Amino acid sequence: MRCDVVAVGSELLLGQIVDTNSSWIGEQLALVGIDSLFQTKVGDNLGRIVTALEQALERSDAVIVCGGLGPTQDDITRDAIAKVMGVDLELDEEVAARIERMFSSRGRRMSANNFRQAEVPVGARAIHDPQPGTAPGLICPIGDPDTGKVLYAVPGVPAEMREIVSKAILPDLQRRAGISATIVSRTLRTWGESESGLAERLAGRVAELDRTGNPTLAYLASGIEGIKVRLTAKGADTAEAEALLSAEEAEVRAILGDLVFGVDDETIEASVLALMRARGLTLGLAESLTGGMMGSRICDVPGASDVFRGSIVSYASDVKYSVLGVPEGPVVSAEAASAMASGARRVLGSDIGVAVTGVAGPDPQEGVEPGTVYVGLDLGPLGGDAGPEAFEVKLPGDRVLVRQFSVITAMTALRSRLLAAD
Amino acid sequence: MRCDVVAVGSELLLGQIVDTNSSWIGEQLALVGIDSLFQTKVGDNLGRIVTALEQALERSDAVIVCGGLGPTQDDITRDAIAKVMGVDLELDEEVAARIERMFSSRGRRMSANNFRQAEVPVGARAIHDPQPGTAPGLICPIGDPDTGKVLYAVPGVPAEMREIVSKAILPDLQRRAGISATIVSRTLRTWGESESGLAERLAGRVAELDRTGNPTLAYLASGIEGIKVRLTAKGADTAEAEALLSAEEAEVRAILGDLVFGVDDETIEASVLALMRARGLTLGLAESLTGGMMGSRICDVPGASDVFRGSIVSYASDVKYSVLGVPEGPVVSAEAASAMASGARRVLGSDIGVAVTGVAGPDPQEGVEPGTVYVGLDLGPLGGDAGPEAFEVKLPGDRVLVRQFSVITAMTALRSRLLAAD
Repeated sequence: MRCDVVAVGSELLLGQIVDTNSSWIGEQLALVGIDSLFQTKVGDNLGRIVTALEQALERSDAVIVCGGLGPTQDDITRDAIAKVMGVDLELDEEVAARIERMFSSRGRRMSANNFRQAEVPVGARAIHDPQPGTAPGLICPIGDPDTGKVLYAVPGVPAEMREIVSKAILPDLQRRAGISATIVSRTLRTWGESESGLAERLAGRVAELDRTGNPTLAYLASGIEGIKVRLTAKGADTAEAEALLSAEEAEVRAILGDLVFGVDDETIEASVLALMRARGLTLGLAESLTGGMMGSRICDVPGASDVFRGSIVSYASDVKYSVLGVPEGPVVSAEAASAMASGARRVLGSDIGVAVTGVAGPDPQEGVEPGTVYVGLDLGPLGGDAGPEAFEVKLPGDRVLVRQFSVITAMTALRSRLLAAD
Repeated sequence: MRCDVVAVGSELLLGQIVDTNSSWIGEQLALVGIDSLFQTKVGDNLGRIVTALEQALERSDAVIVCGGLGPTQDDITRDAIAKVMGVDLELDEEVAARIERMFSSRGRRMSANNFRQAEVPVGARAIHDPQPGTAPGLICPIGDPDTGKVLYAVPGVPAEMREIVSKAILPDLQRRAGISATIVSRTLRTWGESESGLAERLAGRVAELDRTGNPTLAYLASGIEGIKVRLTAKGADTAEAEALLSAEEAEVRAILGDLVFGVDDETIEASVLALMRARGLTLGLAESLTGGMMGSRICDVPGASDVFRGSIVSYASDVKYSVLGVPEGPVVSAEAASAMASGARRVLGSDIGVAVTGVAGPDPQEGVEPGTVYVGLDLGPLGGDAGPEAFEVKLPGDRVLVRQFSVITAMTALRSRLLAAD
């Protein structure tokens, strides 16, 4: 089974927006075992959208077209599909009623244009579940509805597109492809081992899995998001596939232990905040080379305010001395990191203090090589009032990556201390 | 003149890498007045690359194919081009000698595969200038070398691709398109006016420009990077085009004044740091809703350490009171922002203090609506010891944008105070 992807929008061709939708769809198709061999971008032009769809249908069994379903005159994907199918558009009463309800419940006036979004090519079917935005996804059979090819349309808004593709289009594609099995996947996020280190630890497990080919494992290095281990399982139905996945997750977790910090979209910051919140603890930071990135990442998590008290970004050495009480001396050192962590606790009045100091590069500092970073932690009473600790790491990559890796390394260290204290 | 773009690489289809090369090339083509109506991604498969190139050549006058020029067995773009041209590959002695020199000067052993990068389809021409990597760009005439169509190949490494496209391919395309003129562009970065506000201020100027159509103006909203005004000028040669551009820049600057903070890739943080450095001033920050983003952005600028002393991220209200000396009371207020700015100056020992406090959303805080932000500034002696000041802004967008806009708003305010103090 082959499925082309066509992304519609002049702004994509002009480089005003990068087309990340096709990449995401390609990844999802690969995951369920469907090949996506060509992906095309085309502008908001009826004739050219028709051409792109026709060429795609010629070489593939299915096509997902993304974007151009909005309410404005520019949004002509519906018209192009009708032309490809050789049919007219008709109003889908259910979608129209739904759009009307949405507008009236918000007390907003609806324009005639909004009804365009309720138009569906004759013979096509609007996807009512899920329907996360105003424009529904469309399933448009080309030729015989059961044996012919198929064209799917989804909105260009990434969140809406993702929901419709995952919940309605992929299952429909799998059914058509005769993939009676359900394929599900789960991503375990890790930090603390390189990709090759993870592969080494999991080598025995992978050899066992290779015998059946189900589930499978794959790795993906993702910067500040960690190194991801993706588990994919196939089953007769969702329940069977999910059961396989859960069993495999348990196997992998038994091998990787605390290296796993989160599942799917859970960031290390969200994971740490949840653990802190559950324990009623507050957090204060002291940052040097990260310049505030650690605090900023934490504030990305909704509801951070009940845990996060603040961060002392002490970029200049003498701010470390005067504000955080670091003893005068080298500031890229375990001693400085420890003192920074305790200083953060004291100054910010938090239960726990976490600090990072190091050399982001490109040049050495105090004779210390770029990538050398010290993480300091002061767990206060949670650590039995043992006082602060610190450790050194050598991080790879350029200035940007060293700073990102510093954040995830410090947060991972805090996470493991929280778990160890239970 | 129409130019398709074909990006080669299975990892692009699988979503492991997002194809940003096509977007960049599309933008550059638009800039020189060449339409890019279709852009295609295709995997590392000879037959399918040939199909993609043939379809692209059918509908366009020129095609830029990007990627697949490396030394490994996966890199088959050269072979696909030879097939499309109906010719064999031959060794380009100049390129081969260059690659050999590169390896021997680094004391590295060269594998036979590396010579693949010196192979060129018969009748095609390797681009020797510029040649930023080991693989040269290729100019491959299809049919008559002067009147026929043309296929360009560039490496997928973005930096190499950009250099070859800018310096060799765009000029060649313009020559073929009969665009004898040179087209150059410059981007002025602004903050402080909406896109429609800028358009209103520049309406008179744009009306004048419309009479000649040269230079032209365009707007591009770019989040934390500001709102960009792109000037594009056409001239008989580079000198003439650049002169037009400089004259137009002066016109636009006369109208927009301090709204313009940077040119091309210059961020507001880089602009502020340069002004501070030139005046021998140091900077301290106090951040609330931005959580450290302002400090982190400043540290992205190489050499920030001679100006930036640090940031007090006071997320919790009582940290504002205890560390920064903000009087107890509402913390989303002009009074709090002023006190935070002075507190940052005092605690961090900086010449100037800048603060932001506000509501990022999605929910109101202290009864204040999301998007309400106060910026505080304490210029110290530079402000004639007049004490701190603060102002309120209402920023649009979601939680992420409100935080980004807070950073650029505060930095822009500091920039205008620095200029006013001269």
